[in-house]
Amino acid sequence: MPELENICRKARKSALLLACASSADKNQWLLAMAKALEENTATILAANRIDLEKGAAKGLSGAMLDRLRLDEKRVKGMADALRYVTTLPDPVGEELSSFTREDGLLIKKVSVPVGVMGFIYESRPNVTTDAASLCLKSGNAVILRGGSEAFASNCAIGDIVIAAAEKAGMPEGAVTLIRDTSHETVNALLKMDQYIDLIIPRGGERLIRTVVKESTIPVIKHYKGVCHLYVDKEADIPMALAILENGKFQRPGVCNALETILIHEDIASQFVPEMKKLFAEKGLKKVYGSEKYCSMDENAQMIPEENYSNEYLDTIISAKIVSSAEEAVDHINFYGSGHSDSIVTANGRTAEYFQNYVDSATVYWNASTRFTDGGEFGMGAEIGISTDKLHARGPMGLKELTTYKYKIYGNGQIRK
Amino acid sequence: MPELENICRKARKSALLLACASSADKNQWLLAMAKALEENTATILAANRIDLEKGAAKGLSGAMLDRLRLDEKRVKGMADALRYVTTLPDPVGEELSSFTREDGLLIKKVSVPVGVMGFIYESRPNVTTDAASLCLKSGNAVILRGGSEAFASNCAIGDIVIAAAEKAGMPEGAVTLIRDTSHETVNALLKMDQYIDLIIPRGGERLIRTVVKESTIPVIKHYKGVCHLYVDKEADIPMALAILENGKFQRPGVCNALETILIHEDIASQFVPEMKKLFAEKGLKKVYGSEKYCSMDENAQMIPEENYSNEYLDTIISAKIVSSAEEAVDHINFYGSGHSDSIVTANGRTAEYFQNYVDSATVYWNASTRFTDGGEFGMGAEIGISTDKLHARGPMGLKELTTYKYKIYGNGQIRK
Repeated sequence: MPELENICRKARKSALLLACASSADKNQWLLAMAKALEENTATILAANRIDLEKGAAKGLSGAMLDRLRLDEKRVKGMADALRYVTTLPDPVGEELSSFTREDGLLIKKVSVPVGVMGFIYESRPNVTTDAASLCLKSGNAVILRGGSEAFASNCAIGDIVIAAAEKAGMPEGAVTLIRDTSHETVNALLKMDQYIDLIIPRGGERLIRTVVKESTIPVIKHYKGVCHLYVDKEADIPMALAILENGKFQRPGVCNALETILIHEDIASQFVPEMKKLFAEKGLKKVYGSEKYCSMDENAQMIPEENYSNEYLDTIISAKIVSSAEEAVDHINFYGSGHSDSIVTANGRTAEYFQNYVDSATVYWNASTRFTDGGEFGMGAEIGISTDKLHARGPMGLKELTTYKYKIYGNGQIRK
Repeated sequence: MPELENICRKARKSALLLACASSADKNQWLLAMAKALEENTATILAANRIDLEKGAAKGLSGAMLDRLRLDEKRVKGMADALRYVTTLPDPVGEELSSFTREDGLLIKKVSVPVGVMGFIYESRPNVTTDAASLCLKSGNAVILRGGSEAFASNCAIGDIVIAAAEKAGMPEGAVTLIRDTSHETVNALLKMDQYIDLIIPRGGERLIRTVVKESTIPVIKHYKGVCHLYVDKEADIPMALAILENGKFQRPGVCNALETILIHEDIASQFVPEMKKLFAEKGLKKVYGSEKYCSMDENAQMIPEENYSNEYLDTIISAKIVSSAEEAVDHINFYGSGHSDSIVTANGRTAEYFQNYVDSATVYWNASTRFTDGGEFGMGAEIGISTDKLHARGPMGLKELTTYKYKIYGNGQIRK
């Protein structure tokens, strides 16, 4: 695909320029994008109507159509998000460490952009500007490939912001939108390892598995969030209930919501009746329980083992009675997704054990898993959450879009 | 392959224990390994003789046989290297950053081991203990798969050190040696992404390309080191000659040796005659030159373009006359391998430009590329050099074998 290779080659070339661009310049490009978005709201909304009509004709669900829908307020929100990114500190050029050898050679480890990002995403058109802004601010070139449902919206947004930023001096190829949503093209893109340094997919598990399978480029991803709350025998019961309510009911469709509750057998007879009240009050759709749990809750249905790995994305929960913190940890490490898990206990040693041995990106003591988010973690912005262990783990902000190089300063040193 | 899967499962299980092992325990295991190596030198040398005889019968080169050969001094060296690793700081448990939210939630980012390493290497038997020690010290389980040439040596070393460390309390499965050097087994190992977190191959380019192609597990690698020296128009000529001599002749077979020299046209008429003298004196085997270079050196042979990407691993060099620092940078970014490149110049702005725009792991100003090495960089030890950009770039020490997790401390916080 010579056209695609040409896009990648241009992105690579611009990445070398972007790596050395000043913060002031990068911010100017983002402000130009924000202004252009607002000035061209009508064009964007017209394109969005095409996507909405096609989506309705294709029978997309109400939730899908809502994710796709733009209005003046949402376009304004996209522009404001671009302006907000200009206020964040530039992650490039930070001296991470330095070391001076006895022979005077100075070795500095300095943060630099990764290079060229490939960003593959589904239906929300605002991801187009969110991803572009975070990649640019961190000095990376980005190739955007949105989903077919938002094709017209993404093209309109892409055309507008790219033209505005290039007019403001952004190098050509720094941001590119692939105007082709075929599988062949995305598969070819995922093989461009000569030009692209990192692929970030954002969407459902199916999209992400396909990307991982096809890509010869490193991918940072999370498949799903199977998050656990372990109610220890020394738990404060009202606290555990509040954390459960927050984790399961506040926004059940997100990755840091709870899917499984593990309850120590010594506290179960006190805790389970309170939990049942909460479930009834909040209208939980279903609870799948272990044998022992089912003996304590007449509404529970016996859980098929595979459900312990389920991300319900709904007000459905898996519940299990365990006989120790060790059993809880083993369960989480076996069935969990390495995303976010929490223990409620008054015992600091049990909490320490749990935080050390649970092999997840974020491990909470007496707090809700819902905090796993770049914004909540003080990163300013989030480009995704990684359940991988290499390069970035947990919420990814601007800093996670950088790598480092060593700059070494000598006056003629040679190795003995 | 049920047996292989069993090995991987045990490694995964032990990794959870290793992650929380104390520095004192880990050091005890390493000291027990060192002692056992020395006490069993005769057994190791007997096994090594089998490999040497087979190697000689197979017609391995003298250099290959030398890499394979062990003697008392080399075994003592392996034991000393194990003892040395005990003196290095433990990279696990470091608080990398922390953030307290307004609601009092404390978010700590803490270094933790990556988990399970797969280490695939070629003929030097000492890599068995080097890799095991660095993985263990950083709290990782490791599955070792050495080359067939060193099979008997690796098995003897592995048996001795694993038994000694397990006797000293190391969890079973923390270090495993695969006793099967078939391609089928290594290919199956490279698919065990449920159990293994990271593959580090160490050997020739062919081995590494095969590993990358087959692996569904992230790989940190370097294919080759095509390192450049750019002699700027404002270079100090004696300094440039000293750095060239060090880079090309001190150890031409290593990855941080020089392969290409780029010379600014304004200094070429002064520099090239001196360089020719150096080449004659040091017995350079061959110089491949650009057209312009060839017009200045009657010994040079016109360079085929593909040679600019060659890692000669010998006293052979590529030479090119360039008209600017920009041309030098473009050449390096196009033909280089992202490993180590150096500029000699008295002009700080030219050096800064070069260090910013050359997209390599280590970029030197007025110093030899031969310093790219974990030991020389003050890392204490080196497990390899990465020309990848993600997770680790440049020399990799103990710290590069860790990742991080977030430990979060609350008192009932929920997300609003």
